[in-house]
Amino acid sequence: MKSFVISRRVNCYIVLALVVLFALAAPAHAGIDPLPSWNDGPAKQAIIQFVKETTDQASPKFVPPEERIATFDQDGTLWVEHPMYTQVMYCLERVPAVVKAKPELKNVEPFKTVLSGNHGAIAKLSMEDIEKILAATLTGMTVDEFNGEVKKWIENAKDSRWKRPYTELVYQPMLEVLGYLRSNDYKTYIVTGGCQDFVRVYAERVYGIPPEQVVGTAGVTKFGYDKTGKPFLTKEPKLLLNDNNAGKPEGIHLMIGRRPYAAFGNSTGDRQMLEYTKTGEGARLSMIVLHDDARREYAYGPAQGFPDTKVGAFTQALYDEAKKQGWIIISMKDDWKRIFSFEQ
Amino acid sequence: MKSFVISRRVNCYIVLALVVLFALAAPAHAGIDPLPSWNDGPAKQAIIQFVKETTDQASPKFVPPEERIATFDQDGTLWVEHPMYTQVMYCLERVPAVVKAKPELKNVEPFKTVLSGNHGAIAKLSMEDIEKILAATLTGMTVDEFNGEVKKWIENAKDSRWKRPYTELVYQPMLEVLGYLRSNDYKTYIVTGGCQDFVRVYAERVYGIPPEQVVGTAGVTKFGYDKTGKPFLTKEPKLLLNDNNAGKPEGIHLMIGRRPYAAFGNSTGDRQMLEYTKTGEGARLSMIVLHDDARREYAYGPAQGFPDTKVGAFTQALYDEAKKQGWIIISMKDDWKRIFSFEQ
Repeated sequence: MKSFVISRRVNCYIVLALVVLFALAAPAHAGIDPLPSWNDGPAKQAIIQFVKETTDQASPKFVPPEERIATFDQDGTLWVEHPMYTQVMYCLERVPAVVKAKPELKNVEPFKTVLSGNHGAIAKLSMEDIEKILAATLTGMTVDEFNGEVKKWIENAKDSRWKRPYTELVYQPMLEVLGYLRSNDYKTYIVTGGCQDFVRVYAERVYGIPPEQVVGTAGVTKFGYDKTGKPFLTKEPKLLLNDNNAGKPEGIHLMIGRRPYAAFGNSTGDRQMLEYTKTGEGARLSMIVLHDDARREYAYGPAQGFPDTKVGAFTQALYDEAKKQGWIIISMKDDWKRIFSFEQ
Repeated sequence: MKSFVISRRVNCYIVLALVVLFALAAPAHAGIDPLPSWNDGPAKQAIIQFVKETTDQASPKFVPPEERIATFDQDGTLWVEHPMYTQVMYCLERVPAVVKAKPELKNVEPFKTVLSGNHGAIAKLSMEDIEKILAATLTGMTVDEFNGEVKKWIENAKDSRWKRPYTELVYQPMLEVLGYLRSNDYKTYIVTGGCQDFVRVYAERVYGIPPEQVVGTAGVTKFGYDKTGKPFLTKEPKLLLNDNNAGKPEGIHLMIGRRPYAAFGNSTGDRQMLEYTKTGEGARLSMIVLHDDARREYAYGPAQGFPDTKVGAFTQALYDEAKKQGWIIISMKDDWKRIFSFEQ
């Protein structure tokens, strides 16, 4: 009898709590701009319309909460990638430590050039050279050692233009999109061509995205035991998933298993992810960031009339495809009221 | 001014709602057994103690909600695996359709034996033969085609002993553990040696586990375009992740990126996952299901004095390691009040 009374009282409380919560749901959101760093325009409107259409139960394009997946490229989409990917900066700065451990690399290229500190020569390294540096600095240690090294570095390293930690060079408008989607029950994922383990170290703190929602280029890890019999994982120099180009939808299938409803990118490496997303049934949103603001950030890529660079290429062909397929182009210059949170 | 008034009113509502919710949090849970299908005993106590220790902010073993990860093997841990894995049953039953599409396989082993319908001969197929059948029936089609085939099959196929769909042969006590952990902010994952794409088809409906929380043996998929230019993914006959033995912690690192706080298994294939989990810092729970109930389910494996079988081997060595390492053994006979939800 007692438990029945408690149960009735509890039920009353629950009903009361729900009534209060539902009552304030509408006024709490009405009038609050979820994207205050965005100028009014087609890009902002597209995001808001997409969220409304997919979360309104009366909409024919309603998407059940468990299916709400949104994927974001990182470099050039969520944070600055110019003039060099942050992860490559990390790898270059790790070279002295690697050479100290393996002195035989001292006079071997490309390590010799990196050790010279000659910025001009370093900037001219080929992609093949860069890959050798990545392999040498991202593998051959335990997962825990790697995480510790990246954590220490990312807390201290600074970008040379803004003199701020790289993790402050995230785009405030995109942080607002992440938060807006999550507050509407979207699971937000990073799907990056960069190293998955690298991004996982800071993604939760910087973007609110937990490690299990970071998909990236990944190598094989190898399970083993230390002298005391305690298991550990070693990062092997063998590629498992190249999460670029076609590798992005392939990685999404492997790690998420659902087609995203929204995807955000900025370069040819994101093309297949944007195609895969946009051609799903129902409401699908593919958006692409155009770096056209030389004053506040950078302007680069053929779609901007600049020659191609080592970082994310927004080619003219990609620009044309975006127009043709109905992807929304985000102009940093026109669509973003401010770019970084530290700006007034 | 108006928005200030609305904001104050909204804040009052929020405070009121929170007070009501907190007030009922304690009485709502007190006295309700979260594991009603478990007999009181060391296994049930270990689960409850683990949840209390890791979710009580005053506990030295408190785990922040975002780090709460629990992993579950599937076959023999969440549902029946004897006398044959359900996924292998699917593959065997797909053979006629595969041979119809490729008639040249008709007189080739092991397809010839499967087509003969000779149960004795089929049961004697080698692991190598089984792998040939898996490759032929799990690859070579688009991801969407595969999902459609599995969905149709799993809704209709029945186990020969219970004459019920395989998806009803899930262990009610383990469903309660999944729910209990989730209600305490644990993210529950399946980490299976079975085919990741197969399990993802029904895991949400059957276990409440979404596709992105199913880690399993996975093959390469290949991105391509159909005649209309629409992208699709094809399942290739190339292994990407063998999610068994050492592959389980390796798969956990790849797909989750955090060490679990709790892991559940039942065979040698789960050994490394249980070791990896249990040797983490703080409160860690490794549990292992012993199939010792021939009447209500099955009794098998060397730890039970039976010869090894094709399905999950609970060897004597694993039993001894469990005892030594402090993994908790779940005796189906002693610890489970009922095994299936359809039992009275």
